[in-house]
Formats: sequence, structure tokens, C-alpha cells
Amino acid sequence: MIVTATREVRTSGQGDAHDITPLVADLLAGSAVSNGVAVVSVAGSTAGITTIEFEPGVLADLNDVLERLAPRGAEYRHHLRWGDDNGSSHVRAALVGPSVSVPVSAGRLLLGTWQQIVLLEFDTRGRRREIVVQLIGE
Amino acid sequence: MIVTATREVRTSGQGDAHDITPLVADLLAGSAVSNGVAVVSVAGSTAGITTIEFEPGVLADLNDVLERLAPRGAEYRHHLRWGDDNGSSHVRAALVGPSVSVPVSAGRLLLGTWQQIVLLEFDTRGRRREIVVQLIGE
Amino acid sequence: MIVTATREVRTSGQGDAHDITPLVADLLAGSAVSNGVAVVSVAGSTAGITTIEFEPGVLADLNDVLERLAPRGAEYRHHLRWGDDNGSSHVRAALVGPSVSVPVSAGRLLLGTWQQIVLLEFDTRGRRREIVVQLIGE
Repeated sequence: MIVTATREVRTSGQGDAHDITPLVADLLAGSAVSNGVAVVSVAGSTAGITTIEFEPGVLADLNDVLERLAPRGAEYRHHLRWGDDNGSSHVRAALVGPSVSVPVSAGRLLLGTWQQIVLLEFDTRGRRREIVVQLIGE
Repeated sequence: MIVTATREVRTSGQGDAHDITPLVADLLAGSAVSNGVAVVSVAGSTAGITTIEFEPGVLADLNDVLERLAPRGAEYRHHLRWGDDNGSSHVRAALVGPSVSVPVSAGRLLLGTWQQIVLLEFDTRGRRREIVVQLIGE
Repeated sequence: MIVTATREVRTSGQGDAHDITPLVADLLAGSAVSNGVAVVSVAGSTAGITTIEFEPGVLADLNDVLERLAPRGAEYRHHLRWGDDNGSSHVRAALVGPSVSVPVSAGRLLLGTWQQIVLLEFDTRGRRREIVVQLIGE
């Protein structure tokens, strides 16, 4: 059985993070899937999905490391091409990746106690993000 | 239903990138899967798969960041062991990861307009890469 | 068909790595799945799963790069909040990710010769890690 659902999340720009675990858990609770995998994706090349402890300190720490790795204010060849200002966003998104797979057993997401599914906005401006959740299972 | 297909892609060495979205879309179009997930993988420990805007500027920017993160010319313990020169390749591949999962709905890959599935070659020499595409769905 | 199994792995703290390919291959051999995907995950926000050549030199090289990227001894806001010392662990785990999907064909994991599935411990102390392996296929 495969259940596909999309949900929209509005973000405020680079560094914004959203805990989308409740969104995934709600879809799971409303489905007939009790054993399988939840594949959670974001459409677009300037956002990412991963898991993290959803706590402001950790989120700020992650942003600090990403800022050192791909500084927002640096020069990017992408800027020269399109006049964009989001080269740092593209690089961060390619490294973090656009999706995560989370196991489901007995109708529950098998996450750690301090582990949440997170949408990370890397773009330099706020966006409407389409989150795609797929429950594959039985 | 699960469809598995492999395709070979020849690369020219570190920094080479291939847009493999058409390859995945063709397999999808030729299959009976209309709702599910496309899991795209590369076999080997010195290449990676992710999504990115497939544009020369962005690809160069990503390579620049990876070069700062794991410089090709730095000393790696892997080199001491095997006489290899691709320590940077192994590190980059482990960080980017060997596969990506892309949702499929109504027979289409749910990617953003500027988001392509990309094979990244990290090895220091050209390789023949085996891309494995799996369509899981109904 | 979906087979879910969990296995416990004890780790010794940051930098510890375990080759969990045999664990996944054993579960696959004992299952009726011959074509599909193995989704391998770790529960928790301070560990990661990826693939790598499981060789001490490469593993040390990866740790060196992660240490430069998110140094263990740096100041993290996460430490201020909870009195924890594992800010570097959370950042590394969010970047590497908690799961990997590996294709299965003819009853075999489609990995390269020098490519293993690896559990990476990022936490500053040893942990008992729950590895979740899911075989989705036919």
C-alpha cells in the first residue's frame, strides 16, 4: 500500500526550520499503514529534509556550521549567471539532501526521543514549500 | 510493484556531474508505476547522488565548497595505506551519500522546476558508474 | 512484502564506526525478499548511517574532516541550554543523515566491492544504538 500526501509549509528564509514530525505522524495515524517506511521529501533545490533534535540551540549551531561551510555573503558563480543571491542555498541543499526515510512499526515512527523530522529552509527569502509524505507499507 | 533497472554512465573524474533525471523519467514512463517512490543509487564508495539545480555555476560552487571541506591535495591516511590518491573522494562520497528517494505521483517525478537528480563523480579518475533505479509503487 | 528487524549495536563514542553490512546481508539472506530496497536507519539524533569503504584510513580521514567542520571542543549553543557536551554530535548527525537506502537484486545488496554500510557514532560517549533494517520488495 502506498499513501501519498502533500502539505504546504511557509518559511521565512535562510535558517528557518520547521518540525514536520507532527504532520507526518498525523498522516500516518489517518492511514491504514502500520508497518513500512515514511519517505518525506521537499520539492525544490534550495531546501532540505533531515532529522535533528528540534531545539533552538542545536538549530543555531547547525546554521553556524553551514554558514562557515557555504557563507551566504561569499561569491558564487551561480550569482553571476542569474543575478541570484542564493548560491549558498543551493550548495547547502545539495549537501543535506531533499528527503529522509523513517521506519514505521506498529503504527509509530521509529525515531529517537529527541529526534524530529525537520524541513530546513536554505533560500535567502521566505518560500511556500511543498512537503511530500509517502507511506509505503502494509 | 518493484521495477529495478541499471544504467551505465561514464564520468571524467572529480568534479564531473551528470543530470540523470531523463534516465529516471524514461524508466518511469516505460513502467506501469504511477504512484510511489523512485530510489536512485550509485554503486561504489567514491561517487554520490543528490538533487541540485543542474547549472554550471551551481555545480562549480558545490565543487568549490567540497574542495575546501576535503581538499584533493591534502594528506589522507587512506593514501598511506593503499597508495591511492582519492582520500578526498571517499570523504565527499560518505557525506553526500549514495542514493536519493524521489516521490512519484500521477506518473511524474515530484521535483521542483529547477531541481534535477545528479550523479556526482568524486573519484580522481574517470569511471564507469552503475546507476540503479528502483521504482516502488503501484 | 515488508520485513522489519531491529538490532542493537554498542558503540564507544565519537569517531567509532561499525560495518553493519553483514547484519543487513544476514537479514536479507533469511528473508524471502530477492528484489527491492533495504532501508537502514538508526534511531537517535547523534548518530548517522551512510556507506563508505570500511578501512581505518578512510574512517580516520572522515573523522578529521568532520572535526574541522564541527569541532568537538568548540562552543555550541546546545551546551548552554542543557549542559550537554555533544553539540558537535548533533550537527554532524544532521548533515550525514539517519538512514540509507540500498538496492537489492537477485537476493544481493547492490553495493560496490569497496562499499560498506556503516553506523557512525557521533555522540561524545558510548551508546547502545538501535539499527532498524527494512526490506521492501518481493
